[in-house]
Amino acid sequence: MQSFTTLSALFEKQFNKRHFPEQPVNLYDASSYILSIGGKRVRPVMVLMGNELYNDIDPDAYEVASAIELFHNFSLIHDDIMDKAPIRRGKPTVHAAYGDATALLAGDVMLVVAYDYINRIKATHIQKIITLFNKTAREVCEGQQMDMDFEKKDTVHFDEYLHMITLKTSVLLAASLQMGGILGGAGLGNQQHMYSFGKNLGIAFQVQDDYLDAFGDPEKFGKQPGGDILANKKTFLLIHALDVASETQKKELHRLLKMETTDEQSQLSKVNQVLDIFRDCKVDEWAAELKDKYYRLALKNLDDIAVLSSRKTELEKLAGYLLQRDH
Amino acid sequence: MQSFTTLSALFEKQFNKRHFPEQPVNLYDASSYILSIGGKRVRPVMVLMGNELYNDIDPDAYEVASAIELFHNFSLIHDDIMDKAPIRRGKPTVHAAYGDATALLAGDVMLVVAYDYINRIKATHIQKIITLFNKTAREVCEGQQMDMDFEKKDTVHFDEYLHMITLKTSVLLAASLQMGGILGGAGLGNQQHMYSFGKNLGIAFQVQDDYLDAFGDPEKFGKQPGGDILANKKTFLLIHALDVASETQKKELHRLLKMETTDEQSQLSKVNQVLDIFRDCKVDEWAAELKDKYYRLALKNLDDIAVLSSRKTELEKLAGYLLQRDH
Repeated sequence: MQSFTTLSALFEKQFNKRHFPEQPVNLYDASSYILSIGGKRVRPVMVLMGNELYNDIDPDAYEVASAIELFHNFSLIHDDIMDKAPIRRGKPTVHAAYGDATALLAGDVMLVVAYDYINRIKATHIQKIITLFNKTAREVCEGQQMDMDFEKKDTVHFDEYLHMITLKTSVLLAASLQMGGILGGAGLGNQQHMYSFGKNLGIAFQVQDDYLDAFGDPEKFGKQPGGDILANKKTFLLIHALDVASETQKKELHRLLKMETTDEQSQLSKVNQVLDIFRDCKVDEWAAELKDKYYRLALKNLDDIAVLSSRKTELEKLAGYLLQRDH
Repeated sequence: MQSFTTLSALFEKQFNKRHFPEQPVNLYDASSYILSIGGKRVRPVMVLMGNELYNDIDPDAYEVASAIELFHNFSLIHDDIMDKAPIRRGKPTVHAAYGDATALLAGDVMLVVAYDYINRIKATHIQKIITLFNKTAREVCEGQQMDMDFEKKDTVHFDEYLHMITLKTSVLLAASLQMGGILGGAGLGNQQHMYSFGKNLGIAFQVQDDYLDAFGDPEKFGKQPGGDILANKKTFLLIHALDVASETQKKELHRLLKMETTDEQSQLSKVNQVLDIFRDCKVDEWAAELKDKYYRLALKNLDDIAVLSSRKTELEKLAGYLLQRDH
């Protein structure tokens, strides 16, 4: 199996082209724009890696990988509209640059073009791939709806949050790897191991994301920690803190959550006070263990896939890289 | 071939069920809501009729018809968000009832479920159906974008408007009929005649729609005419009027277009003044002829389909019914 870097470059070479017609300019420029601002292409590479567990890469794997990357970007465009997010990957979001209406349509058309790519693969695989693709797409929408529902709820339980985050971010990783496996001829059992590997890896990655947003080293992390805290976002950390905190700490957390911060100093103070409670509740240690739990589950899933170990090393390395295990 | 009424009832019987999971409630209630507020189901019946030109209805035709109806409702939800429309079919639009974000997602998930239905048909037809479905879906998005672009333009030419309206409203009718034909085993030539029939019928219907909004009898039409005029909408009528009007009339039209109307009396006055110019320019006669031109083109396309004439009578009746030719 080839490395993430090699496969990412191979994918980029095929993917870096115009995916849309020229007219109407506004519509298709908006669709092209989000693809041009990059991303690590982790999901499409998962398709290729899933495929390479079994065989040399089937040309169909590139079609499915393109479909997955288009779907991913479709969901980013629409999520950004719903979340009214102004910035993505350091650039204006599509709706900020082109207006809500055009961004909405640009997303729609990307989803359709994703199915165009799937429709090009060998007929023998189409129905299986579409079934998994559709199930995943529905789940991603469900995750986004749950996320929006949670914003209006006072209390969110750990299990609910885990379910939401699994749908919103992990199932697409899981399905990407499984689709590569389907194209490579994997049996059902191995497909399930591949799916579980992707799912558990995704959860571990999200735990890490929540952790770094609170406790990350600003020098390595590239931004000041505390963004989620200032946005009063429900995260693994906050949900667990509210689960284990004493009554006094809970009251204090709720007070802090309601606190409006306008200037830099009050923001810094809010973040530090919340982090103090997190530390007092050992939320940092708990999160590190939770991440490790899902990382180990993922490695177990990888181990269970019945192919030569040598074929699996790059996936193991990718997991380590994404979860900052090797640096 | 069975009548529109019979086929519409047959379709409704199969379609009138829950198409979505139960959870998350907000998301799937919003998707179900728009299906519950009805519609004539013209497009899915076109699939069944296209199929019946050749054979007894294939169960796959119901799957494709369901996909088409879901796609149509997906596009209505998203169009209503973009157009900020408060009312559809006499009820609050989905975004008015459930909020913009949930309406957006509800549309997304409907599009995905549309592909679920297509994915259930026989493998031999899937790729052909998806190819046509995707081309059509892209074109519908392009039509909507062009429509939005036109709102910001001072001058729109007849050909541009015709192209926009063809994409936005006619290609889906055309493709619906063709898909029925594909499932029935129609050859390429006949498929093209079916497609053209649907396209020309759709254009004639749109011309009639524009005409009735201006000149319709309020008693039969169910609402006061002039809605398009008050919204300063570019229509077949306005575009043609600006094409043929004298310099004085043109100036007067532009003055009226810029006129803000707040009370009922000024609205009535604006509508009547615009209609006077339309009549002076014989826009009413021109529109009646234009509609008739596309109606006759459609009948010619129907005539060209190489199946027994007796199989075609119901489609001819449907065209007459939609274009108010028989009452």
